[in-house]
Amino acid sequence: MGSSFGTLFRISTFGESHGGGVGVILEGCPPRLELDPLAIQAELDRRRPGQSKITTPRKEADQVEILSGVMDGLTLGTPIAMVVRNKDQRPQDYKEVEVAFRPSHADATYQAKYGIQARSGGGRASARETIGRVAAGAIARQMLQRSHGTDVVAWVKRIHDLEAQVDASTVTREAVDANIVRCPDAEMADRMIDRIEAIGQDGDSCGGVIECVVRRPPVGLGMPVFDKLEADLAKAVMSLPATKGFEIGSGFAGTLLRGSEHNDAFLPSDDGRLRTASNNSGGIQGGISNGEPIVIRVAFKPTATIRKEQQTINDRGEATTLAAKGRHDPCVLPRAVPMVEAMVNLVLADHLLRQQGQCSLW
Amino acid sequence: MGSSFGTLFRISTFGESHGGGVGVILEGCPPRLELDPLAIQAELDRRRPGQSKITTPRKEADQVEILSGVMDGLTLGTPIAMVVRNKDQRPQDYKEVEVAFRPSHADATYQAKYGIQARSGGGRASARETIGRVAAGAIARQMLQRSHGTDVVAWVKRIHDLEAQVDASTVTREAVDANIVRCPDAEMADRMIDRIEAIGQDGDSCGGVIECVVRRPPVGLGMPVFDKLEADLAKAVMSLPATKGFEIGSGFAGTLLRGSEHNDAFLPSDDGRLRTASNNSGGIQGGISNGEPIVIRVAFKPTATIRKEQQTINDRGEATTLAAKGRHDPCVLPRAVPMVEAMVNLVLADHLLRQQGQCSLW
Amino acid sequence: MGSSFGTLFRISTFGESHGGGVGVILEGCPPRLELDPLAIQAELDRRRPGQSKITTPRKEADQVEILSGVMDGLTLGTPIAMVVRNKDQRPQDYKEVEVAFRPSHADATYQAKYGIQARSGGGRASARETIGRVAAGAIARQMLQRSHGTDVVAWVKRIHDLEAQVDASTVTREAVDANIVRCPDAEMADRMIDRIEAIGQDGDSCGGVIECVVRRPPVGLGMPVFDKLEADLAKAVMSLPATKGFEIGSGFAGTLLRGSEHNDAFLPSDDGRLRTASNNSGGIQGGISNGEPIVIRVAFKPTATIRKEQQTINDRGEATTLAAKGRHDPCVLPRAVPMVEAMVNLVLADHLLRQQGQCSLW
Amino acid sequence: MGSSFGTLFRISTFGESHGGGVGVILEGCPPRLELDPLAIQAELDRRRPGQSKITTPRKEADQVEILSGVMDGLTLGTPIAMVVRNKDQRPQDYKEVEVAFRPSHADATYQAKYGIQARSGGGRASARETIGRVAAGAIARQMLQRSHGTDVVAWVKRIHDLEAQVDASTVTREAVDANIVRCPDAEMADRMIDRIEAIGQDGDSCGGVIECVVRRPPVGLGMPVFDKLEADLAKAVMSLPATKGFEIGSGFAGTLLRGSEHNDAFLPSDDGRLRTASNNSGGIQGGISNGEPIVIRVAFKPTATIRKEQQTINDRGEATTLAAKGRHDPCVLPRAVPMVEAMVNLVLADHLLRQQGQCSLW
Repeated sequence: MGSSFGTLFRISTFGESHGGGVGVILEGCPPRLELDPLAIQAELDRRRPGQSKITTPRKEADQVEILSGVMDGLTLGTPIAMVVRNKDQRPQDYKEVEVAFRPSHADATYQAKYGIQARSGGGRASARETIGRVAAGAIARQMLQRSHGTDVVAWVKRIHDLEAQVDASTVTREAVDANIVRCPDAEMADRMIDRIEAIGQDGDSCGGVIECVVRRPPVGLGMPVFDKLEADLAKAVMSLPATKGFEIGSGFAGTLLRGSEHNDAFLPSDDGRLRTASNNSGGIQGGISNGEPIVIRVAFKPTATIRKEQQTINDRGEATTLAAKGRHDPCVLPRAVPMVEAMVNLVLADHLLRQQGQCSLW
Repeated sequence: MGSSFGTLFRISTFGESHGGGVGVILEGCPPRLELDPLAIQAELDRRRPGQSKITTPRKEADQVEILSGVMDGLTLGTPIAMVVRNKDQRPQDYKEVEVAFRPSHADATYQAKYGIQARSGGGRASARETIGRVAAGAIARQMLQRSHGTDVVAWVKRIHDLEAQVDASTVTREAVDANIVRCPDAEMADRMIDRIEAIGQDGDSCGGVIECVVRRPPVGLGMPVFDKLEADLAKAVMSLPATKGFEIGSGFAGTLLRGSEHNDAFLPSDDGRLRTASNNSGGIQGGISNGEPIVIRVAFKPTATIRKEQQTINDRGEATTLAAKGRHDPCVLPRAVPMVEAMVNLVLADHLLRQQGQCSLW
Repeated sequence: MGSSFGTLFRISTFGESHGGGVGVILEGCPPRLELDPLAIQAELDRRRPGQSKITTPRKEADQVEILSGVMDGLTLGTPIAMVVRNKDQRPQDYKEVEVAFRPSHADATYQAKYGIQARSGGGRASARETIGRVAAGAIARQMLQRSHGTDVVAWVKRIHDLEAQVDASTVTREAVDANIVRCPDAEMADRMIDRIEAIGQDGDSCGGVIECVVRRPPVGLGMPVFDKLEADLAKAVMSLPATKGFEIGSGFAGTLLRGSEHNDAFLPSDDGRLRTASNNSGGIQGGISNGEPIVIRVAFKPTATIRKEQQTINDRGEATTLAAKGRHDPCVLPRAVPMVEAMVNLVLADHLLRQQGQCSLW
Repeated sequence: MGSSFGTLFRISTFGESHGGGVGVILEGCPPRLELDPLAIQAELDRRRPGQSKITTPRKEADQVEILSGVMDGLTLGTPIAMVVRNKDQRPQDYKEVEVAFRPSHADATYQAKYGIQARSGGGRASARETIGRVAAGAIARQMLQRSHGTDVVAWVKRIHDLEAQVDASTVTREAVDANIVRCPDAEMADRMIDRIEAIGQDGDSCGGVIECVVRRPPVGLGMPVFDKLEADLAKAVMSLPATKGFEIGSGFAGTLLRGSEHNDAFLPSDDGRLRTASNNSGGIQGGISNGEPIVIRVAFKPTATIRKEQQTINDRGEATTLAAKGRHDPCVLPRAVPMVEAMVNLVLADHLLRQQGQCSLW
């Protein structure tokens, strides 16, 4: 509980930023899936630090090792354990954290909850924890691609107040990865990169919005009434560090429409497939996928750890100031793109197996 | 799975809009809680249809019966089953649904998923399902009030484009219930009521935003890394019918701030209690409650079922039109206020017991 | 937790011997199963008190009402709630229990755990709780019969030291129900009935062993490593009141054999179906069903509540004596036969859906 | 699911006999437990192969590495991951398994379930999987010792037909470990060792019974009605490889007693602690621990893999013979003693946290 996610396609992550390593156990993956380990590593490379001038310069190779569950490139149906060793820890970068709680970070609440906390690097609250999610998400992606040709693509929709124009029906992962900010609107991407660099040089940070589309989703995923597909997607992405908001389809803006404007008219169909004239539903109706593209948006706050001096307290409750000296991301969004994709793939994979479980007996 | 929610304080709801009744089993409630059954009924009265001129005129008394788990007004620690009988079904109101899928409703996706669907009233997708949640939420509220004096208050923040000004630090449930739209900004409430009536007379519908605050929450609730408190709150409210978005604290607007503006500075404290100068975090940091008020917002789309004629298809995929004849809410928000409170209370109660489970042994 | 069982085919029971009623919610039943409500009631009739001279003379009709999840005789895929109203409570029969803890009953431990207990009839520890299990088990049976023609039959194998000879490969439920003790060895059944009557007239009680066979089980059920099929069967039947032991296949006697005697040789097969020359494995190898009949045995202790005077204590820890005055079963086994079948059917149904979930995608 | 066990104190194991390694993630361990890593390694040394002349001569050091969840010898409250690298695999020993299914082993059923199986050494069905359980069980033991001084001791009660006399109220782990068969009855231990050696030299194998006592258990553990403490103990030990039966307290033999003989009379008590004159209940009444010693017994079948030639089939269903050439245990019981202790400690730890969760709020 807490470090596990999913029901049938279920992951359990472990690991702090200090200690021997981080990783994941994936339970419930169907047997006989041809697994491409390079594709798993490629996803980890998209999330690793040090990949560009707008991420933290920490160098972490994040080389994944698969310990179990795979033989000759095929899944066995047994738990798949994957581990990435910790390196380059430089605990002195975090030294001040030991005496001053970082504002809006997890230091103080972990201490309040557990009466103890990892001395360096954020412990479980470190972005390093997401390595396990991303590795398992890469397996979920392969399963969904094989079974339904499902395609999950996320991108940076907005940085600070700079908003991109992106066509969710055609955008590709190649276009997303064509620049270091992972925004497929090339012109806006350049402006975003400049903005992140400028804010970073100020010792400050910024946030933004990531959008994600699922094309060719399986139909019928999602369970009434609590495990609606959008509810599980919301939980999945809101469990990522630094998230503050979630939308599906029309989202908050949809509340400004009337029902007659917002409803998605069904179109006639010969093949039994549901199709709608608009997609304010974001591909999910009554908590169940209808086959139209699933579209979500996630708000990420500005990174909490900044070099600018801030007011805070130490662990005795006394006033102090803090100016972080570590090598921190001025903006988490470029590295969060593969995290969002991973969580979406994990939710879909889990619901696909749940749907198989209940509804494929006859 | 699917119809259950929570881990230690766990509910399972049942029931369609047709059939014998709807209800809930609550497992895991601590023993020896003095239970006020009138407070449970009072919450159900806040969500029932027919309570005012801006809700559906369907009359449903929604009288709850407690079948188990309570003796002499005290909980036994065993499952508490509560049931509300169905009445006043008038299936003819839903007759057209049998041949025409309602746009943006759950008819078509239930049929696609299960190959069968309840013939009338939305089945599990009916708002009637929320009776069980609201009844169990009323017990969670009593538990939290007794153990920590926790106070959960939700209200209508916006209807269509009419936005209220409400002070989350002082607003009371009495102020919320002072008018039929459940907006504690009295002047704006009048305008909201007019708007809902006008749109309803058009045969149309509208949506809006509900805000909810938790004052005096227990400190230390929430589990790294997937069961962060905000992640479970997001799932909880996004599992309510008609929801399209979720925010915690600064939400989407917070993405326009810099880190130095967004971070909540810790204030010196004598008593070990964490306090922050601002509350962009919305009371949760690193997924764990810090004791400051928890503030969330939820977007509700305009009601899908409207009297205006719409384009749709029948169950053979052929084009047809639909103009709903039933007695439907032109706006779900006034009745959704107790639903949001219930889900928030349920999440807090569950996390409180989980915190007790792991962290109270020594 | 605690009152729920299963993962995908999941039941939650509720209800005490006092209060409004007892029942169950069954989640996860596949849609479009033709449900025979008379078969559900028939199973309840097999477990109800007052059915013969060797059971408690309490008369309880135990009429089940299906509240949800079914329409026109077909399951909807949504939760199926079933309730049986409590009647004929006669709390005075249990009056002495209020002041004297019944030896080997649950009175004292419930009080120790919860600091409160149901004042009459055993609360959740009452055999009445099993009504929900039996009702849900009857649905599991119908699902398994339709999908695989699976046949689950249990019978009384031994009462006190009277052991029957029964051929597990051919015994029928009709033969089991041909006498009131539910032992298909007719001659031994007569002796068992006499024994139970004699012991009951002494104000005493006796136990015995129930055996259960599953013929035509689905192949491949059971999950490495904790949810082995025999492990879940063990938990399922050991959760029934009064059980003290569990065996699969050769059981404790098998420990007296050598490996070369105990191993089940595989037989050549044209059709890919596994067949073994012997069945010491009891139909399960490595935790997974191999298609041979599954055979288990369950030990039931003598009923704890007896009319004979016993030494005990009251709730202040003081010595007292107790001679129960209620109408109690001198032997639980005849009524426990449908309970064992129900639990076995529930385990198989759950594992069948889990197998579908993981292994039917390609 | 399947490879996870427990609710709040929850383990997930991974790893096959081939591949990089085996291990476990333990979620939910309370924070600030002083962890003795040597005690963990010591438990693994008790279960490792090659420890004596009556176990397989395979040499596996089974050195455990703790990857996460611990800092400066204290638990953090976060997942504790532990891994043991695989070594000395010698796949040629298992070569014949590729073409001939071992009778009464898991080869054939894994193939039937998954359509694929680990080519060597049993995959997940290997006893090597239990490394993770034993490592996590060693942490559960430390938690229970600290919080309640609870003492869990298991021993070999019977080998083949050689039964030891052991006083469960006084037996120590030192006495158990005083000889290589782990039977604290020294004279009988010698005979057991001779028997195992003789049967092993025949190329055959034998089974037996392990008994386990819990002294000073926490009172009030166990949940009505499905998660009774004995039900979870039954599942826990029946999930170990080669188990065929389970008993609690009087077990199968208790079914030969009358209620007046079997019932455990309560003794007067000044301190509120429950005490009984006898302990046929085995320390659990109504599914809840009463504080008396918990006593269980587990039947282990003779090892399936033997050197004697056996009839079997290959993966095309054709008749063949098999005489295993590997280095196999002629009897699993000496190495299974720490496995049984581990599972019992895990069940108690989980139920202790569940009890804290529900019943420690006021």
